[in-house]
Amino acid sequence: MELLKQKIIHEGIVLNNNVLKVDSFLNHQIDPKLMFEIGKCFADLYREAGVTKILTIESSGIAPAVMTALHLDTPVVFARKKKSLTLQTDLYTEVVNSFTKKETSEVSVSQKFLSSEDHILIIDDFLANGDAALAMVHIAEQAHATIAGIGIVIEKSFQPGFDKLKNLGLRIDSLARIASLDNGQVFFS
Amino acid sequence: MELLKQKIIHEGIVLNNNVLKVDSFLNHQIDPKLMFEIGKCFADLYREAGVTKILTIESSGIAPAVMTALHLDTPVVFARKKKSLTLQTDLYTEVVNSFTKKETSEVSVSQKFLSSEDHILIIDDFLANGDAALAMVHIAEQAHATIAGIGIVIEKSFQPGFDKLKNLGLRIDSLARIASLDNGQVFFS
Repeated sequence: MELLKQKIIHEGIVLNNNVLKVDSFLNHQIDPKLMFEIGKCFADLYREAGVTKILTIESSGIAPAVMTALHLDTPVVFARKKKSLTLQTDLYTEVVNSFTKKETSEVSVSQKFLSSEDHILIIDDFLANGDAALAMVHIAEQAHATIAGIGIVIEKSFQPGFDKLKNLGLRIDSLARIASLDNGQVFFS
Repeated sequence: MELLKQKIIHEGIVLNNNVLKVDSFLNHQIDPKLMFEIGKCFADLYREAGVTKILTIESSGIAPAVMTALHLDTPVVFARKKKSLTLQTDLYTEVVNSFTKKETSEVSVSQKFLSSEDHILIIDDFLANGDAALAMVHIAEQAHATIAGIGIVIEKSFQPGFDKLKNLGLRIDSLARIASLDNGQVFFS
């Protein structure tokens, strides 16, 4: 997606060889028109896929997921992060490791909102090590739902997430694929 | 907003005299078309107000805020909740008490994204005791920004938040105002 790549080039900050900061339009400040176009792009890719529900994780996944849902006319569910291990039987729960925050947390989705009838499109802001996306895949599996695919705003192709998901036979669509952040520069693949 | 009131009546769950659960369309699952209409409604109210930026708090404020921003053509910034008290000098930070979660946390906004040039519209999903909205007001003050107003999706008018904000001379626009949740029923004011 050219508009997104331009935004990354002009506003992205390469913190080191692994971390790209895009908090001016995606992770802290949000550009709503860009999100609208991102949502349209994902919707165009999945228009004929029979998606019944979009699944994302709070918080940075919400804006692109809601815009995709607007274009596909489906509900969104966002998995909630929580630290406590309170046992609640009406939740699908998974452990997720955050690459950027270097911490482990739990994410959960109410069983009310995902079922075996659902064909799910997973949306997330970043794909790095794939842990957040994998947690969502496992939540979908717990619900006995099927997965239409995984839509990623920015994929860091030099990290193992893409291969992990691909090896599960999942469809992955990334709107910007970054081959390298070496020497403070963004190289797209 | 009639569409929102109907949604509350049909899908809202009154947990007790103080708590209304709307996780089927706002707080966990999100109805994107309703959010689009909510955003349009806030935008219509603030079209001539000279808003330069929308401020909300993760996570449930993000969807209505992004849709409002889409209609007003402004960026959104969402305040981040964090538990740790790591001192970072480039952040505006405030303490916020969560009414529903019975916990105290910190919220912060990068100083890069709010300045004295900004005229801010604060958006949030609920107004109850007003603590989240007040934290955002204080963050705007730290930035020496001015406040156009506060847009609330669902106001519980029987709790003190509205009066606290009104006493500061702030404009508040709530799309649904709930007078009471007594006896398991929603009464709008």
